[in-house]
Amino acid sequence: MIIGGAEDKLGRRTILKEFVSASAGEHARIAVIATASSLGPEVVEVYDALFRKLGAAEVVSVRPENRHDAHDPDLIAEIGKATGVFMTGGNQLKLSSVICGTPFADAIVEANRSGTVVAGTSAGASIQSSHMVAFGGPGSTPKQRMTQVAAGLGLLSSSVIDQHFDQRNRYGRLLMIVSQSPSLLGIGVDEDTAAVVEEVDGHELMRVVGRGAVAIFDPANIVTNAHEAKRSTPLLASGVTLHVLPEGARFDLTSRTLIPQPARVDPKEAAEIAEAGQDLRQLARDIAADDRSPSVLRRRMARKRTKSEYPHQDGAH
Amino acid sequence: MIIGGAEDKLGRRTILKEFVSASAGEHARIAVIATASSLGPEVVEVYDALFRKLGAAEVVSVRPENRHDAHDPDLIAEIGKATGVFMTGGNQLKLSSVICGTPFADAIVEANRSGTVVAGTSAGASIQSSHMVAFGGPGSTPKQRMTQVAAGLGLLSSSVIDQHFDQRNRYGRLLMIVSQSPSLLGIGVDEDTAAVVEEVDGHELMRVVGRGAVAIFDPANIVTNAHEAKRSTPLLASGVTLHVLPEGARFDLTSRTLIPQPARVDPKEAAEIAEAGQDLRQLARDIAADDRSPSVLRRRMARKRTKSEYPHQDGAH
Repeated sequence: MIIGGAEDKLGRRTILKEFVSASAGEHARIAVIATASSLGPEVVEVYDALFRKLGAAEVVSVRPENRHDAHDPDLIAEIGKATGVFMTGGNQLKLSSVICGTPFADAIVEANRSGTVVAGTSAGASIQSSHMVAFGGPGSTPKQRMTQVAAGLGLLSSSVIDQHFDQRNRYGRLLMIVSQSPSLLGIGVDEDTAAVVEEVDGHELMRVVGRGAVAIFDPANIVTNAHEAKRSTPLLASGVTLHVLPEGARFDLTSRTLIPQPARVDPKEAAEIAEAGQDLRQLARDIAADDRSPSVLRRRMARKRTKSEYPHQDGAH
Repeated sequence: MIIGGAEDKLGRRTILKEFVSASAGEHARIAVIATASSLGPEVVEVYDALFRKLGAAEVVSVRPENRHDAHDPDLIAEIGKATGVFMTGGNQLKLSSVICGTPFADAIVEANRSGTVVAGTSAGASIQSSHMVAFGGPGSTPKQRMTQVAAGLGLLSSSVIDQHFDQRNRYGRLLMIVSQSPSLLGIGVDEDTAAVVEEVDGHELMRVVGRGAVAIFDPANIVTNAHEAKRSTPLLASGVTLHVLPEGARFDLTSRTLIPQPARVDPKEAAEIAEAGQDLRQLARDIAADDRSPSVLRRRMARKRTKSEYPHQDGAH
């Protein structure tokens, strides 16, 4: 679960509820990794209270603070015992420089492969992709050098995730990255919004939950000048396919295609069609009765004719 | 010329220079339309001073303030006499509600068709498309009802122009409009940047000038839920083709394709290849001389071998 930051904690809590439920609900044992945060135990206390209120049985803090900690067998064992792993917000470069390339990171990847839910918000979202936005400035126009890429956990292959996407105006920096790296899929997640990814038959399938949207930049057909743009000039990024996906939308990250949704039915239209269907069934019955008594139909049609001959009798004209 | 606002007036003035030059330079007679502005004569005075400084012969203020003025034959005649028309910034809905559908607007369209340059910045840019962003909020994620569309001048067909695009974070509202109207091409112009459009063989060809970029949203293949999204929820906008075009880029607005550019040549690489070419010519001369005196070549090759056997003799290791 890739959460774009600022997930609702007081109201409907759609995203956190879904996380606890996917982590085995009342049997959940959730490991909270707060390494990215500059705050002390208080950040864990918030999630501890939240997850317990949402029904989780146990919440444990698992917080390596340096690469030595990230080799500690006790901390690593906690990941193995968890039914859900939650990485908090903060500084993703702190998180990645402490855990990436250590047995602790391997344990998270392994747990996720064997079915444990791994969620992260803000910094904890960024680190999930193979390539990670380390830091960078805001703006919608992609400019050379506006952001830095580092190596992430790689729970999601060939991709780069950005968060607080709408709220902090991060179109430009994600476009810069996919212009320089057209093998990556750019994924921008708004606040209080999550991209929930599951692997099905070798495809990474994504579903959107929450108040905002998930933006996908597919640079497969890009034409760019990223290799020759000087200083911080705007980049040429022509032919990027963009998908903006609100709640309920489903997307195949592997084939890079939208998964079609059944069309929503308008209840008024449905009621009208149901009435028309009744009329047709009455007609069928009358025909089956060999034209002997089509009385009901005749009365109904007469009523309709009257209405259409005096369409303005309600005084609206 | 569609200028994204805040064009440079003190430094290089690339865009304003190009406008004056395209308006016949020292023979230019420029009509400034400041109807959109809430300021008095001072806005015209600024452009008057600027255009004269850049070499224009004459600058006249042509400022209808209501639809009655926009029928005034004297004002309309000024458009016919101008070699360039410049529409200032301000409120595009004021400008469009005063001039659109009047003989004054017809005169601008007619002048442009017969070759007069028409430029506009900010509000004066927005009004140039067939469909005009009237007003709306910022944000990168497209949301239902976040902006309003009104009818523009239609100098550019089947399109909608937005300005201050990067600086005011207007991706979302332009995406909302093309989601609701997939027949339109969305064109977002950054500040101090211009889209210069010329019609050639029935195609509208665009060239980018200035410090920022022009973003193009092509919704030809869009999948959207714009017809059923409620309230101000984020919109589904899947499969939009995005082009970000910096200075020098050229784009065919009619076929919606990038016009390929010759690749930029790296001067260092060019110097190396030129030297290699000299060597090859020497070799050819030696062969032509029937192997009698390939002395220069032999000496040169010996020199190169020495260098590559001692690559670190400059002490850099």
